[in-house]
Amino acid sequence: MKAKVHITLKPGVHDPQGRAIGGALSHLGFTGITGVRQGKVIEIDLDETDRKRALEAVDGMCKALLANPVIETYAIELS
Amino acid sequence: MKAKVHITLKPGVHDPQGRAIGGALSHLGFTGITGVRQGKVIEIDLDETDRKRALEAVDGMCKALLANPVIETYAIELS
Repeated sequence: MKAKVHITLKPGVHDPQGRAIGGALSHLGFTGITGVRQGKVIEIDLDETDRKRALEAVDGMCKALLANPVIETYAIELS
Repeated sequence: MKAKVHITLKPGVHDPQGRAIGGALSHLGFTGITGVRQGKVIEIDLDETDRKRALEAVDGMCKALLANPVIETYAIELS
């Protein structure tokens, strides 16, 4: 089973990477950009075949390591 | 309009971040992990309201800055 974890900064949290990208794009001549935010997607291949157990395991991974609960939110997609 | 750019490493390209995450997860006691890959998601808020022009602009941004064509692929989602 494959799990995709989408990790994004919580609204209101300062996003220096996003601002840097936005600045660079404007510098390159791209206009009409009102905001840029960068997040992560972590794809995890699992031996687990039971969806419930897989979801619990990946949720545990997010809490233990993958997402910083203070500034990030995460969403798990199983396929 | 909001554009989401999903950037992932091309298959076969070495992914040190993914390997580091996999190692850390195993170290934390998570089992049954056969592979970990990390990608990026860049959300761009655009003034543009025409979908075709927005897609062209974001595609240009990917080619100019956001994605490294040698090792990365990208997919654009408009909403």
